[in-house]
Amino acid sequence: MVVLRITVTLKKAVEDSEGSSVLKALRLLGYDNVREVRSGKVYFITLTKGSKKAGKEFCEKLLANPVINECVVDD
Amino acid sequence: MVVLRITVTLKKAVEDSEGSSVLKALRLLGYDNVREVRSGKVYFITLTKGSKKAGKEFCEKLLANPVINECVVDD
Repeated sequence: MVVLRITVTLKKAVEDSEGSSVLKALRLLGYDNVREVRSGKVYFITLTKGSKKAGKEFCEKLLANPVINECVVDD
Repeated sequence: MVVLRITVTLKKAVEDSEGSSVLKALRLLGYDNVREVRSGKVYFITLTKGSKKAGKEFCEKLLANPVINECVVDD
């Protein structure tokens, strides 16, 4: 059994409005030491067999839009 | 400069409809080796100074609902 952690984020060049909102909110709460926030989605995928390579396929075929997203697979 | 990775997921007991949808979709794509999918949000927060402890505060004050969410901070 393998658990893959797949993180889908927006590419650096793409405006991340959720990240900006969180940044603003943290500043309003008084956290002046926060410089940047980037948001994303994470999927924990349990496989009966397989490897990181399968995770890359899941990104390409389902989870990420290659135009705007970056996809990182960890196990 | 520290970059915290904050992962917010639904607690195990809470129905994760996005995870279920992804599981169904992967099965339809022919991936029979996928057993479970859990989804969540991830935030990469850059601090000019501070530590993991700040991340826990961000969870409590802004990012997570303690009734349904789990929050994990990594640096």
